[in-house]
Amino acid sequence: MLSFECDYIKGAHPKILEALLKTNMETMSGYGNDPYTKSAKEKIRAACGGDVDVHFLVGGTQTNKIVIDSLLASYEGVIAATTGHINVHESGAIEASGHKVLALQGVGGKLEASTVRKYIESFYADGTYEHMVFPGMVYISHPTEYGTLYTRSELSELSSVCRDFGIPLFLDGARLGYGLMSYETDVTLADIVELCDVFYIGGTKVGALCGEAVVFTKKNTPKHFFTIIKQNGALMAKGRVLGVQFDTLFTDGLYFDISRNAINMAKKLKELFVSHGYEMFVESPTNQQFVIVENKKLEELSKKVGFDFWEKLDGERSVVRFATSWATTDEDIDALEKII
Amino acid sequence: MLSFECDYIKGAHPKILEALLKTNMETMSGYGNDPYTKSAKEKIRAACGGDVDVHFLVGGTQTNKIVIDSLLASYEGVIAATTGHINVHESGAIEASGHKVLALQGVGGKLEASTVRKYIESFYADGTYEHMVFPGMVYISHPTEYGTLYTRSELSELSSVCRDFGIPLFLDGARLGYGLMSYETDVTLADIVELCDVFYIGGTKVGALCGEAVVFTKKNTPKHFFTIIKQNGALMAKGRVLGVQFDTLFTDGLYFDISRNAINMAKKLKELFVSHGYEMFVESPTNQQFVIVENKKLEELSKKVGFDFWEKLDGERSVVRFATSWATTDEDIDALEKII
Amino acid sequence: MLSFECDYIKGAHPKILEALLKTNMETMSGYGNDPYTKSAKEKIRAACGGDVDVHFLVGGTQTNKIVIDSLLASYEGVIAATTGHINVHESGAIEASGHKVLALQGVGGKLEASTVRKYIESFYADGTYEHMVFPGMVYISHPTEYGTLYTRSELSELSSVCRDFGIPLFLDGARLGYGLMSYETDVTLADIVELCDVFYIGGTKVGALCGEAVVFTKKNTPKHFFTIIKQNGALMAKGRVLGVQFDTLFTDGLYFDISRNAINMAKKLKELFVSHGYEMFVESPTNQQFVIVENKKLEELSKKVGFDFWEKLDGERSVVRFATSWATTDEDIDALEKII
Amino acid sequence: MLSFECDYIKGAHPKILEALLKTNMETMSGYGNDPYTKSAKEKIRAACGGDVDVHFLVGGTQTNKIVIDSLLASYEGVIAATTGHINVHESGAIEASGHKVLALQGVGGKLEASTVRKYIESFYADGTYEHMVFPGMVYISHPTEYGTLYTRSELSELSSVCRDFGIPLFLDGARLGYGLMSYETDVTLADIVELCDVFYIGGTKVGALCGEAVVFTKKNTPKHFFTIIKQNGALMAKGRVLGVQFDTLFTDGLYFDISRNAINMAKKLKELFVSHGYEMFVESPTNQQFVIVENKKLEELSKKVGFDFWEKLDGERSVVRFATSWATTDEDIDALEKII
Repeated sequence: MLSFECDYIKGAHPKILEALLKTNMETMSGYGNDPYTKSAKEKIRAACGGDVDVHFLVGGTQTNKIVIDSLLASYEGVIAATTGHINVHESGAIEASGHKVLALQGVGGKLEASTVRKYIESFYADGTYEHMVFPGMVYISHPTEYGTLYTRSELSELSSVCRDFGIPLFLDGARLGYGLMSYETDVTLADIVELCDVFYIGGTKVGALCGEAVVFTKKNTPKHFFTIIKQNGALMAKGRVLGVQFDTLFTDGLYFDISRNAINMAKKLKELFVSHGYEMFVESPTNQQFVIVENKKLEELSKKVGFDFWEKLDGERSVVRFATSWATTDEDIDALEKII
Repeated sequence: MLSFECDYIKGAHPKILEALLKTNMETMSGYGNDPYTKSAKEKIRAACGGDVDVHFLVGGTQTNKIVIDSLLASYEGVIAATTGHINVHESGAIEASGHKVLALQGVGGKLEASTVRKYIESFYADGTYEHMVFPGMVYISHPTEYGTLYTRSELSELSSVCRDFGIPLFLDGARLGYGLMSYETDVTLADIVELCDVFYIGGTKVGALCGEAVVFTKKNTPKHFFTIIKQNGALMAKGRVLGVQFDTLFTDGLYFDISRNAINMAKKLKELFVSHGYEMFVESPTNQQFVIVENKKLEELSKKVGFDFWEKLDGERSVVRFATSWATTDEDIDALEKII
Repeated sequence: MLSFECDYIKGAHPKILEALLKTNMETMSGYGNDPYTKSAKEKIRAACGGDVDVHFLVGGTQTNKIVIDSLLASYEGVIAATTGHINVHESGAIEASGHKVLALQGVGGKLEASTVRKYIESFYADGTYEHMVFPGMVYISHPTEYGTLYTRSELSELSSVCRDFGIPLFLDGARLGYGLMSYETDVTLADIVELCDVFYIGGTKVGALCGEAVVFTKKNTPKHFFTIIKQNGALMAKGRVLGVQFDTLFTDGLYFDISRNAINMAKKLKELFVSHGYEMFVESPTNQQFVIVENKKLEELSKKVGFDFWEKLDGERSVVRFATSWATTDEDIDALEKII
Repeated sequence: MLSFECDYIKGAHPKILEALLKTNMETMSGYGNDPYTKSAKEKIRAACGGDVDVHFLVGGTQTNKIVIDSLLASYEGVIAATTGHINVHESGAIEASGHKVLALQGVGGKLEASTVRKYIESFYADGTYEHMVFPGMVYISHPTEYGTLYTRSELSELSSVCRDFGIPLFLDGARLGYGLMSYETDVTLADIVELCDVFYIGGTKVGALCGEAVVFTKKNTPKHFFTIIKQNGALMAKGRVLGVQFDTLFTDGLYFDISRNAINMAKKLKELFVSHGYEMFVESPTNQQFVIVENKKLEELSKKVGFDFWEKLDGERSVVRFATSWATTDEDIDALEKII
């Protein structure tokens, strides 16, 4: 059945499988000490345009947990939007590592710099703050869980707040490619490198079988990060699996091509819905589109196309999510038109 | 260069890559809700010959950490041999989840039932035991870190001790296939299902890109184990990656064929060394062979073939490990003969 | 200087010190195995009117942390009002033990049953709940951080919600005496025993040097709770310190007399402020009174009497807290009158 | 009944209770912001002869847990003797905070510098050390769990090893006074300040109701240690309880007088046993004496005097512990003579 359920319903981009196949019989050391991992790191450094540190991990929740825990002191928590993935959909992974998620009200999935600044100022103004959880980091996602994007100016302001208070800005880029390739962004990878202290380039949701590339931008990789990864059960014996995939993704701009295709398809999909009279729940310039559908229609649609139920809007309407990916084609969009 | 460094220096068995390629464009739900994961579980259940629960995880340390933490109470620790993987080479992953490894002296990597029984009896005989860490589980590996195997009788005795004290027996099977296919074992998969409360069938070191299949044998999967996996950052969005691999490994006995090949090659390798006058450090009936080499010879060898340095034996000799895998061929052994 | 800063600015009630002095030279076993601890438990059981389990701990945050962690599974969090002590003023102690505080909007410091029910129902109605933190317990404080009290009916409804979903109701009674002795409550100790699964009788803020008596009401003390206490660093070697104090507090109704005195003094204090034209921020029927004071006046007052700054109300006014205790006298209130 | 069961079977030294009584009605701020806590810190600083940082905690396990966790990185463990309190009798408190106890064989309860150095050197010489737990601290107790003492030279060597590898030396001084006042020591408080990075001066077992004074000797108090204490549930609201007690203990040398009395009584006790033909299990120069008793005699003795069963020596003899304290008198020793 036609499906836009999410951006991980297909396997990997064919070039990735091809590379795994091609390198399969090569003898390589384990744990990331292989030439492809090395090459992938160099290519990502080149794409970032700076002397950054790159590490590969398997999945998003794992990455958020390890990065956050390794950068926070025991008495610190992480500021996030109430809708942030770490606050809602990671089964309490952050708390399980000992840290409170300091959830602040965002707008369209985004955290505003003024909200963060006010929160931290109030914290230190409170006479009892030593009895409270210190704000030790700011976590944002880009694109957010609602497909929205920070502007360069917004990101810059968040970065300023973090620097004013001496805490890192961490950008969850599980879907980073879709943000970078959006037609409506002024944020480049170089901007992210400059403004964030750490971020990751999502692979799982952008064409890989699995894998996330963590980038520490300020020579701030936590000491013995390798051992930290191992202790968290996140070290792959066959590290080549991640190395080969990211090496492929960052060869000839594949990562960006994949992302651009998803963006193009999402644009078409959105226009399709709008032209058919549907209202969008949120203005998303990326690969996730949130469509408002009447409940009656919903049932009918769900028999013909896969999508993700998001939430009830009111008694009669719901919000559903359609996501595109590297694998979405013009034919898929055409097929969708006949259904909606 | 010719290498016997470990059993994860090559990629995956070709049939696994083939299966990933063949299923790549199929649309599947994430997080293990795909037909291949379902099929793989059924095939493993069939191989186990019973109504066991099967769950897929990514790697060995991750599996040990999650299984142990999810079965222990906060005041309990896990009994293991001092040489056990969890006690030495997992960067304190077990302690990081809050539990002490109660390390007991083993023999050739194995834990003896009498040692365990004596320890637990002494524990409860000690008037101050409420101030101590309760023994809450027994962890063994089969094959062990030294390639050795428990006999059915030894396993049965360990199982009895555990049942007498009401604690689970957990078998780390990161290299389980090599144990089952050894020519010198009387332990079957059915025995393990009967005698252990939980164990895992290692994929990473037995031909897969990654993946371990955890088997709870007594309808004893911890409540909400899915959420526990997620919280530990161990849930793959593209769960198909594990499903397809294990489905392939358990189709037409591939898992056992892979293991048998490694065993055959290890047998040849061992005979080769012995016939050339080398002494073995330990009598290993599985795919890891521990050879005693004079230090002078060591340097020479290391220029021509890859192996793993294990430990210094005395001033003049060292122990090195040679491992075989699905990918080891007769040609490799022949090439080795010319070197040693 | 005259002070109403909090209810722990004086030492212990004289009878408690007297008892410590009187029993000082008696030889007693450690860790709570002394006759006074035993007697104190019996007296508390009698006061509770049932066969409850009683355990002594040193302080409030410690008690909250140990009780909550020992009753929750790893994948569960604790529901609390956003203003709840565990959510604000315990430095992330709950998260440090691995659990998320699921903070819900309360009213006047109280959590409403309907809010809790709606939250849990929504949780299980969400298709992705297995990726979220399970609601595993409800935490309330009585009196709350604002001095307010639940009615019997409100408590009963909260209890029903908890029972409907099979999770425990935990009542933080750091100031329980003041709740029970309020003139405006219909909640008795027997009601709390009936409706809550666990609660504690605060000693530190009700006349003791330190100490909280945890009461498990349904034969539901976590297994090996003694060892859990020890592991948390909360076991006193000289357990008699807690035993003697609680034995004294529950002899001849001292705990209730102490509380009643504080209530009487708080009532006078409140009437005093109201009669002088002050407005109360919240209607508190217990020993903490929240008074609205003009900022200009605030400065003047603070030179003559101790109180606790609570929060800014608007540009010109602030909320301050005045607390009474066992040690507050009519003379203190008279002295206050001359100041305000 | 006459008892030498342990050094915490009596209450507090009368002067401590007297001080609590005398200061009881004084109004003081909570959480250690009181004049007695301040004064106690100053007196301890003076006794230490240097500008050290002093913090008060409630008990020994709590102190070990907080100090160790706050000084270790997540990937580090703590080296201790296998007989060390943290390795045996703290219910896994250290592991519960995420850290492995790296237990090394000691001699008479003491850890030898050469053992520690060899262990750390081997660790870094092991090619797989990044997969292991880093040695991050050395923990010793003085007196040890066997009442034995380090010499100045031994302590100095341990300190050198720690400095060579850049890790702190932590001395558990739960019974420090008895070590300092022993007739057979050349270690002064000034030596400990010089050679250790952190230690604590035990109160609970040296005359106080409760309390341990942690001393960071190198301006190395962990950042936000107050909040760390709070998060661990170890902050007393009535901090005065600890402040007044330690202020008293360090007024006119009371801490040392108490300790000296116990030492004098222990010396008499030991001479008594030896003169009656008993053998000592270990040569302890402090307040704990380990006596070898025939099992037949043991039963008889236990009806007349309290002591602590330590361990079985062989089929016919056992080791028992007799401890003296501030409260032990010449009359107690005389009474004991009539019994043994």
